Amino acid sequence: MSQLLRVQSFTVSSDGFGAGEGQSLETPFGHADPGSLLAWAFATDHPPIARSEPGSRGLDDYFTRDYARNIGAEIMGRNKFGPQRGPWQDHEWQGWWGDEPPFHTPVFVMTHHSRPSFTLADSTFHFVDSDPAAALSRAKKAAQGKDVRLGGGATVIRRFLDADLIDTLHVAVAPIELRSGARLWESPDELSDRYHQDVVPSPSGVTHHVFWRK
Amino acid sequence: MSQLLRVQSFTVSSDGFGAGEGQSLETPFGHADPGSLLAWAFATDHPPIARSEPGSRGLDDYFTRDYARNIGAEIMGRNKFGPQRGPWQDHEWQGWWGDEPPFHTPVFVMTHHSRPSFTLADSTFHFVDSDPAAALSRAKKAAQGKDVRLGGGATVIRRFLDADLIDTLHVAVAPIELRSGARLWESPDELSDRYHQDVVPSPSGVTHHVFWRK
Repeated sequence: MSQLLRVQSFTVSSDGFGAGEGQSLETPFGHADPGSLLAWAFATDHPPIARSEPGSRGLDDYFTRDYARNIGAEIMGRNKFGPQRGPWQDHEWQGWWGDEPPFHTPVFVMTHHSRPSFTLADSTFHFVDSDPAAALSRAKKAAQGKDVRLGGGATVIRRFLDADLIDTLHVAVAPIELRSGARLWESPDELSDRYHQDVVPSPSGVTHHVFWRK
Repeated sequence: MSQLLRVQSFTVSSDGFGAGEGQSLETPFGHADPGSLLAWAFATDHPPIARSEPGSRGLDDYFTRDYARNIGAEIMGRNKFGPQRGPWQDHEWQGWWGDEPPFHTPVFVMTHHSRPSFTLADSTFHFVDSDPAAALSRAKKAAQGKDVRLGGGATVIRRFLDADLIDTLHVAVAPIELRSGARLWESPDELSDRYHQDVVPSPSGVTHHVFWRK
Protein backbone atom coordinates (compact mmCIF):
# COMPACT_ATOMS: atom_id res chain seq x y z
CA MET A 1 0.00 0.00 0.00
CA SER A 2 1.25 3.47 -0.76
CA GLN A 3 2.22 5.90 1.97
CA LEU A 4 -0.57 8.23 3.06
CA LEU A 5 -0.54 11.75 4.49
CA ARG A 6 -3.01 11.71 7.40
CA VAL A 7 -4.42 14.40 9.69
CA GLN A 8 -5.05 12.62 13.02
CA SER A 9 -7.26 13.83 15.88
CA PHE A 10 -6.94 17.50 15.00
CA THR A 11 -9.46 19.47 17.09
CA VAL A 12 -11.23 22.69 16.09
CA SER A 13 -13.90 24.84 17.71
CA SER A 14 -17.49 24.73 16.50
CA ASP A 15 -16.68 27.82 14.41
CA GLY A 16 -13.65 26.18 12.82
CA PHE A 17 -10.60 27.46 14.70
CA GLY A 18 -7.74 25.18 15.72
CA ALA A 19 -6.27 27.75 18.11
CA GLY A 20 -7.13 31.22 19.38
CA GLU A 21 -5.38 34.54 18.91
CA GLY A 22 -2.38 35.82 20.85
CA GLN A 23 -0.10 32.78 20.95
CA SER A 24 2.76 33.17 23.44
CA LEU A 25 5.16 30.99 25.39
CA GLU A 26 2.60 30.75 28.19
CA THR A 27 -0.44 30.38 25.91
CA PRO A 28 0.32 27.95 23.05
CA PHE A 29 -3.34 28.07 22.00
CA GLY A 30 -3.70 31.85 22.36
CA HIS A 31 -6.99 32.79 23.97
CA ALA A 32 -8.28 29.22 23.54
CA ASP A 33 -8.13 26.89 26.54
CA PRO A 34 -6.48 23.66 25.36
CA GLY A 35 -7.91 21.85 28.39
CA SER A 36 -11.42 22.53 27.10
CA LEU A 37 -10.71 22.17 23.41
CA LEU A 38 -8.91 18.83 23.84
CA ALA A 39 -10.89 17.55 26.84
CA TRP A 40 -12.41 14.75 24.72
CA ALA A 41 -8.95 13.36 23.88
CA PHE A 42 -7.42 13.67 27.33
CA ALA A 43 -10.34 11.72 28.84
CA THR A 44 -9.54 8.63 26.76
CA ASP A 45 -7.29 5.69 27.53
CA HIS A 46 -4.88 6.73 24.76
CA PRO A 47 -4.48 10.50 25.20
CA PRO A 48 -2.09 12.44 22.95
CA ILE A 49 0.34 12.74 25.87
CA ALA A 50 0.53 9.39 27.65
CA ARG A 51 -0.27 9.11 31.34
CA SER A 52 -0.53 6.19 33.72
CA GLU A 53 -4.18 6.41 34.88
CA PRO A 54 -6.73 4.53 32.77
CA GLY A 55 -9.23 6.51 30.71
CA SER A 56 -12.44 5.89 28.79
CA ARG A 57 -12.42 3.20 26.09
CA GLY A 58 -15.48 4.23 24.11
CA LEU A 59 -15.80 5.81 20.68
CA ASP A 60 -13.34 8.66 21.34
CA ASP A 61 -10.63 6.18 22.28
CA TYR A 62 -10.81 4.57 18.83
CA PHE A 63 -9.68 7.90 17.44
CA THR A 64 -6.92 8.61 19.95
CA ARG A 65 -5.55 5.07 19.78
CA ASP A 66 -5.26 5.46 16.01
CA TYR A 67 -3.10 8.59 16.41
CA ALA A 68 0.25 6.83 16.03
CA ARG A 69 -0.82 3.65 14.18
CA ASN A 70 1.46 3.10 11.18
CA ILE A 71 2.87 6.64 11.43
CA GLY A 72 6.57 7.01 10.61
CA ALA A 73 7.02 10.80 10.56
CA GLU A 74 5.19 14.04 11.37
CA ILE A 75 5.04 17.37 9.60
CA MET A 76 4.03 20.38 11.71
CA GLY A 77 3.81 24.12 11.36
CA ARG A 78 6.26 26.32 13.19
CA ASN A 79 3.62 27.51 15.65
CA LYS A 80 3.08 23.97 16.88
CA PHE A 81 6.77 23.87 17.76
CA GLY A 82 6.98 27.23 19.50
CA PRO A 83 5.74 30.85 19.62
CA GLN A 84 8.81 32.47 18.07
CA ARG A 85 8.54 34.54 14.88
CA GLY A 86 11.39 35.43 12.51
CA PRO A 87 14.95 34.05 12.80
CA TRP A 88 15.62 31.64 15.66
CA GLN A 89 17.31 33.48 18.55
CA ASP A 90 17.62 30.81 21.19
CA HIS A 91 18.66 27.30 20.25
CA GLU A 92 18.60 26.24 23.89
CA TRP A 93 14.79 26.35 23.86
CA GLN A 94 13.77 23.11 22.17
CA GLY A 95 10.03 23.43 21.72
CA TRP A 96 6.89 22.98 23.77
CA TRP A 97 7.09 19.21 23.91
CA GLY A 98 9.44 18.52 26.81
CA ASP A 99 12.28 16.03 27.10
CA GLU A 100 10.13 13.16 25.80
CA PRO A 101 8.04 14.50 22.92
CA PRO A 102 4.94 12.41 22.08
CA PHE A 103 5.93 11.93 18.42
CA HIS A 104 8.49 9.09 18.60
CA THR A 105 9.44 9.68 14.95
CA PRO A 106 11.28 12.24 12.84
CA VAL A 107 9.39 15.58 12.94
CA PHE A 108 9.60 18.15 10.14
CA VAL A 109 8.89 21.73 11.25
CA MET A 110 7.87 24.05 8.40
CA THR A 111 9.76 27.35 8.77
CA HIS A 112 11.49 29.87 6.54
CA HIS A 113 14.30 30.15 9.09
CA SER A 114 16.98 27.50 9.20
CA ARG A 115 18.03 25.78 12.37
CA PRO A 116 20.12 22.66 13.04
CA SER A 117 18.27 19.39 13.63
CA PHE A 118 18.27 17.97 17.16
CA THR A 119 16.99 14.89 18.93
CA LEU A 120 14.96 14.62 22.14
CA ALA A 121 14.48 11.02 23.28
CA ASP A 122 13.09 9.21 20.18
CA SER A 123 11.88 12.33 18.30
CA THR A 124 14.25 14.15 15.94
CA PHE A 125 13.25 17.66 14.86
CA HIS A 126 14.22 18.90 11.40
CA PHE A 127 13.52 22.46 10.22
CA VAL A 128 12.51 22.68 6.58
CA ASP A 129 12.09 25.70 4.32
CA SER A 130 10.31 24.20 1.33
CA ASP A 131 6.94 23.90 -0.30
CA PRO A 132 4.48 21.29 0.99
CA ALA A 133 5.24 18.76 -1.75
CA ALA A 134 8.99 18.81 -1.06
CA ALA A 135 8.44 18.61 2.69
CA LEU A 136 6.12 15.63 2.22
CA SER A 137 8.62 13.91 -0.03
CA ARG A 138 11.31 14.25 2.64
CA ALA A 139 8.97 13.09 5.41
CA LYS A 140 7.87 10.04 3.43
CA LYS A 141 11.47 9.02 2.95
CA ALA A 142 12.10 9.38 6.67
CA ALA A 143 8.92 7.39 7.45
CA GLN A 144 10.44 4.27 5.86
CA GLY A 145 7.26 2.97 4.28
CA LYS A 146 4.88 4.07 7.01
CA ASP A 147 2.40 6.94 6.70
CA VAL A 148 3.09 10.58 7.53
CA ARG A 149 0.99 12.49 10.04
CA LEU A 150 0.23 16.14 9.33
CA GLY A 151 0.16 17.50 12.86
CA GLY A 152 -1.24 20.99 12.31
CA GLY A 153 -1.91 23.75 13.14
CA ALA A 154 -4.78 24.91 11.01
CA THR A 155 -2.62 27.06 8.75
CA VAL A 156 -0.30 24.26 7.70
CA ILE A 157 -3.25 21.89 7.14
CA ARG A 158 -4.82 24.47 4.83
CA ARG A 159 -1.57 24.78 2.88
CA PHE A 160 -1.44 21.03 2.35
CA LEU A 161 -5.16 20.95 1.44
CA ASP A 162 -4.55 23.69 -1.12
CA ALA A 163 -1.76 21.56 -2.61
CA ASP A 164 -4.11 18.52 -2.58
CA LEU A 165 -1.59 16.39 -0.70
CA ILE A 166 -3.76 15.06 2.16
CA ASP A 167 -5.19 11.53 1.87
CA THR A 168 -7.27 11.26 5.05
CA LEU A 169 -8.36 13.65 7.79
CA HIS A 170 -9.89 13.11 11.18
CA VAL A 171 -11.05 16.40 12.69
CA ALA A 172 -12.89 16.56 16.02
CA VAL A 173 -15.22 19.54 16.36
CA ALA A 174 -15.52 20.63 19.99
CA PRO A 175 -18.65 22.37 21.36
CA ILE A 176 -16.73 25.60 22.01
CA GLU A 177 -16.78 28.90 20.12
CA LEU A 178 -13.53 30.81 19.62
CA ARG A 179 -14.65 33.59 17.23
CA SER A 180 -11.07 34.30 16.09
CA GLY A 181 -7.68 32.65 15.67
CA ALA A 182 -6.20 30.12 13.24
CA ARG A 183 -9.06 28.93 11.08
CA LEU A 184 -9.23 25.50 9.47
CA TRP A 185 -12.54 26.01 7.69
CA GLU A 186 -15.78 27.94 7.54
CA SER A 187 -17.57 24.61 7.26
CA PRO A 188 -16.47 20.98 6.87
CA ASP A 189 -18.58 20.86 3.71
CA GLU A 190 -15.76 22.75 1.96
CA LEU A 191 -14.03 19.38 1.57
CA SER A 192 -17.00 17.47 0.17
CA ASP A 193 -15.97 17.87 -3.47
CA ARG A 194 -12.75 15.94 -2.93
CA TYR A 195 -13.47 13.66 0.02
CA HIS A 196 -15.98 11.15 1.31
CA GLN A 197 -17.12 12.24 4.75
CA ASP A 198 -18.50 10.48 7.82
CA VAL A 199 -19.95 12.69 10.57
CA VAL A 200 -20.08 10.96 13.94
CA PRO A 201 -21.42 12.66 17.08
CA SER A 202 -19.72 11.36 20.22
CA PRO A 203 -21.31 11.01 23.67
CA SER A 204 -18.48 13.27 24.92
CA GLY A 205 -19.93 16.24 23.06
CA VAL A 206 -17.47 16.48 20.17
CA THR A 207 -18.41 15.53 16.62
CA HIS A 208 -15.89 13.48 14.67
CA HIS A 209 -15.48 14.28 10.98
CA VAL A 210 -13.65 11.63 8.99
CA PHE A 211 -12.58 12.37 5.40
CA TRP A 212 -11.00 10.11 2.82
CA ARG A 213 -10.32 10.74 -0.84
CA LYS A 214 -12.97 10.11 -3.48
CA MET B 1 -0.62 -2.24 31.41
CA SER B 2 -2.30 -5.53 32.15
CA GLN B 3 -3.45 -7.87 29.41
CA LEU B 4 -7.08 -7.46 28.39
CA LEU B 5 -9.61 -9.89 26.98
CA ARG B 6 -11.33 -8.07 24.11
CA VAL B 7 -14.28 -8.88 21.85
CA GLN B 8 -13.49 -7.20 18.50
CA SER B 9 -15.92 -6.41 15.69
CA PHE B 10 -18.33 -9.19 16.59
CA THR B 11 -21.53 -8.72 14.56
CA VAL B 12 -25.06 -9.66 15.59
CA SER B 13 -28.49 -9.21 14.02
CA SER B 14 -30.88 -6.54 15.29
CA ASP B 15 -32.52 -9.28 17.39
CA GLY B 16 -29.23 -10.33 18.93
CA PHE B 17 -28.07 -13.42 17.01
CA GLY B 18 -24.44 -13.91 15.95
CA ALA B 19 -25.34 -16.75 13.55
CA GLY B 20 -28.46 -18.52 12.31
CA GLU B 21 -29.66 -22.07 12.80
CA GLY B 22 -28.53 -25.12 10.83
CA GLN B 23 -24.76 -24.67 10.67
CA SER B 24 -23.11 -27.00 8.16
CA LEU B 25 -19.90 -27.21 6.15
CA GLU B 26 -21.53 -25.18 3.38
CA THR B 27 -23.33 -22.75 5.70
CA PRO B 28 -21.00 -21.63 8.52
CA PHE B 29 -23.61 -19.06 9.63
CA GLY B 30 -26.58 -21.43 9.28
CA HIS B 31 -29.57 -19.67 7.73
CA ALA B 32 -27.87 -16.28 8.14
CA ASP B 33 -26.12 -14.77 5.13
CA PRO B 34 -22.63 -13.74 6.27
CA GLY B 35 -22.35 -11.43 3.25
CA SER B 36 -25.26 -9.37 4.60
CA LEU B 37 -24.45 -9.66 8.27
CA LEU B 38 -20.80 -8.66 7.79
CA ALA B 39 -21.28 -6.32 4.81
CA TRP B 40 -20.28 -3.30 6.93
CA ALA B 41 -16.87 -4.84 7.71
CA PHE B 42 -16.09 -6.13 4.24
CA ALA B 43 -16.71 -2.67 2.76
CA THR B 44 -13.89 -1.12 4.80
CA ASP B 45 -10.21 -0.72 3.98
CA HIS B 46 -9.27 -3.20 6.73
CA PRO B 47 -11.74 -6.09 6.30
CA PRO B 48 -11.46 -9.17 8.55
CA ILE B 49 -10.05 -11.13 5.60
CA ALA B 50 -7.51 -8.95 3.78
CA ARG B 51 -7.93 -8.16 0.08
CA SER B 52 -6.03 -5.93 -2.30
CA GLU B 53 -8.71 -3.44 -3.39
CA PRO B 54 -9.05 -0.30 -1.28
CA GLY B 55 -12.18 0.14 0.84
CA SER B 56 -13.93 2.88 2.81
CA ARG B 57 -11.93 4.70 5.48
CA GLY B 58 -14.76 6.20 7.51
CA LEU B 59 -16.08 5.31 10.95
CA ASP B 60 -16.45 1.58 10.28
CA ASP B 61 -12.81 1.33 9.28
CA TYR B 62 -11.72 2.56 12.72
CA PHE B 63 -13.34 -0.57 14.12
CA THR B 64 -11.98 -3.04 11.58
CA ARG B 65 -8.47 -1.58 11.69
CA ASP B 66 -8.49 -2.08 15.47
CA TYR B 67 -9.27 -5.81 15.08
CA ALA B 68 -5.67 -7.01 15.39
CA ARG B 69 -4.09 -4.05 17.22
CA ASN B 70 -2.08 -5.34 20.20
CA ILE B 71 -3.68 -8.80 19.95
CA GLY B 72 -1.37 -11.73 20.75
CA ALA B 73 -3.79 -14.67 20.81
CA GLU B 74 -7.40 -15.59 20.03
CA ILE B 75 -9.91 -17.79 21.84
CA MET B 76 -12.80 -19.12 19.76
CA GLY B 77 -15.66 -21.55 20.14
CA ARG B 78 -15.60 -24.86 18.30
CA ASN B 79 -18.30 -23.74 15.87
CA LYS B 80 -16.12 -20.89 14.62
CA PHE B 81 -13.51 -23.49 13.68
CA GLY B 82 -15.83 -25.96 11.96
CA PRO B 83 -19.29 -27.55 11.90
CA GLN B 84 -18.34 -30.91 13.42
CA ARG B 85 -19.96 -32.14 16.63
CA GLY B 86 -18.61 -34.85 18.97
CA PRO B 87 -15.16 -36.46 18.65
CA TRP B 88 -12.98 -35.28 15.74
CA GLN B 89 -13.22 -37.77 12.86
CA ASP B 90 -11.09 -36.14 10.19
CA HIS B 91 -7.82 -34.44 11.08
CA GLU B 92 -7.17 -33.66 7.43
CA TRP B 93 -9.86 -31.00 7.53
CA GLN B 94 -8.21 -28.02 9.20
CA GLY B 95 -11.02 -25.54 9.69
CA TRP B 96 -12.88 -22.94 7.70
CA TRP B 97 -10.01 -20.49 7.52
CA GLY B 98 -7.95 -21.68 4.59
CA ASP B 99 -4.19 -22.02 4.24
CA GLU B 100 -3.56 -18.50 5.54
CA PRO B 101 -5.95 -17.93 8.43
CA PRO B 102 -6.56 -14.25 9.31
CA PHE B 103 -5.49 -14.64 12.95
CA HIS B 104 -1.66 -14.53 12.73
CA THR B 105 -1.38 -15.64 16.37
CA PRO B 106 -1.94 -18.75 18.46
CA VAL B 107 -5.65 -19.67 18.43
CA PHE B 108 -7.32 -21.62 21.24
CA VAL B 109 -10.41 -23.57 20.18
CA MET B 110 -12.76 -24.46 23.06
CA THR B 111 -13.83 -28.10 22.68
CA HIS B 112 -14.43 -31.11 24.90
CA HIS B 113 -12.75 -33.32 22.32
CA SER B 114 -8.98 -33.43 22.18
CA ARG B 115 -7.04 -32.98 18.96
CA PRO B 116 -3.35 -32.31 18.26
CA SER B 117 -2.28 -28.72 17.66
CA PHE B 118 -1.31 -27.73 14.13
CA THR B 119 0.01 -24.67 12.32
CA LEU B 120 -1.24 -23.01 9.14
CA ALA B 121 1.00 -20.16 7.97
CA ASP B 122 1.39 -17.93 11.08
CA SER B 123 -1.66 -19.22 13.00
CA THR B 124 -1.30 -22.20 15.35
CA PHE B 125 -4.51 -23.90 16.47
CA HIS B 126 -4.69 -25.48 19.92
CA PHE B 127 -7.72 -27.43 21.15
CA VAL B 128 -8.53 -26.86 24.80
CA ASP B 129 -10.97 -28.66 27.07
CA SER B 130 -11.07 -26.35 30.08
CA ASP B 131 -13.19 -23.72 31.77
CA PRO B 132 -13.00 -20.13 30.47
CA ALA B 133 -10.61 -18.95 33.20
CA ALA B 134 -8.08 -21.68 32.47
CA ALA B 135 -8.35 -21.14 28.71
CA LEU B 136 -7.79 -17.40 29.20
CA SER B 137 -4.79 -18.03 31.39
CA ARG B 138 -3.23 -20.19 28.70
CA ALA B 139 -4.04 -17.69 25.94
CA LYS B 140 -2.56 -14.80 27.92
CA LYS B 141 0.66 -16.71 28.35
CA ALA B 142 0.78 -17.38 24.60
CA ALA B 143 0.03 -13.71 23.85
CA GLN B 144 3.35 -12.67 25.41
CA GLY B 145 2.14 -9.47 27.01
CA LYS B 146 -0.35 -8.51 24.33
CA ASP B 147 -4.15 -8.69 24.69
CA VAL B 148 -6.30 -11.70 23.89
CA ARG B 149 -9.18 -11.50 21.42
CA LEU B 150 -12.33 -13.46 22.17
CA GLY B 151 -13.41 -14.33 18.66
CA GLY B 152 -16.89 -15.72 19.27
CA GLY B 153 -19.34 -17.13 18.44
CA ALA B 154 -22.15 -15.88 20.61
CA THR B 155 -22.18 -18.94 22.86
CA VAL B 156 -18.54 -18.68 23.86
CA ILE B 157 -18.86 -14.93 24.44
CA ARG B 158 -21.78 -15.59 26.79
CA ARG B 159 -19.74 -18.15 28.70
CA PHE B 160 -16.91 -15.65 29.20
CA LEU B 161 -19.41 -12.93 30.15
CA ASP B 162 -20.95 -15.25 32.74
CA ALA B 163 -17.46 -15.82 34.15
CA ASP B 164 -16.90 -12.02 34.15
CA LEU B 165 -13.64 -12.36 32.22
CA ILE B 166 -14.20 -9.86 29.38
CA ASP B 167 -12.64 -6.40 29.66
CA THR B 168 -13.92 -4.68 26.51
CA LEU B 169 -16.45 -5.54 23.79
CA HIS B 170 -17.14 -4.04 20.41
CA VAL B 171 -20.34 -5.46 18.95
CA ALA B 172 -21.79 -4.24 15.64
CA VAL B 173 -25.56 -4.60 15.37
CA ALA B 174 -26.61 -5.12 11.74
CA PRO B 175 -30.04 -4.06 10.43
CA ILE B 176 -31.05 -7.67 9.77
CA GLU B 177 -33.47 -9.93 11.69
CA LEU B 178 -32.57 -13.61 12.14
CA ARG B 179 -35.34 -14.73 14.58
CA SER B 180 -33.36 -17.81 15.69
CA GLY B 181 -29.81 -19.09 16.04
CA ALA B 182 -26.93 -18.45 18.44
CA ARG B 183 -28.02 -15.58 20.64
CA LEU B 184 -25.63 -13.07 22.21
CA TRP B 185 -28.25 -11.04 24.05
CA GLU B 186 -31.90 -10.04 24.26
CA SER B 187 -30.73 -6.45 24.53
CA PRO B 188 -27.32 -4.74 24.88
CA ASP B 189 -28.65 -3.16 28.06
CA GLU B 190 -28.04 -6.50 29.79
CA LEU B 191 -24.41 -5.43 30.12
CA SER B 192 -25.07 -1.97 31.56
CA ASP B 193 -24.60 -3.01 35.18
CA ARG B 194 -20.98 -4.00 34.58
CA TYR B 195 -19.87 -1.89 31.63
CA HIS B 196 -19.82 1.65 30.36
CA GLN B 197 -21.43 1.75 26.94
CA ASP B 198 -21.16 3.99 23.87
CA VAL B 199 -23.79 3.52 21.16
CA VAL B 200 -22.66 4.82 17.78
CA PRO B 201 -24.87 4.63 14.68
CA SER B 202 -22.80 4.34 11.51
CA PRO B 203 -23.69 5.74 8.07
CA SER B 204 -23.39 2.13 6.80
CA GLY B 205 -26.52 1.12 8.72
CA VAL B 206 -24.95 -0.84 11.57
CA THR B 207 -24.86 0.48 15.11
CA HIS B 208 -21.61 0.05 17.01
CA HIS B 209 -21.85 -0.81 20.70
CA VAL B 210 -18.65 -0.32 22.64
CA PHE B 211 -18.40 -1.61 26.23
CA TRP B 212 -15.64 -1.20 28.78
CA ARG B 213 -15.56 -2.14 32.44
CA LYS B 214 -16.93 0.19 35.10
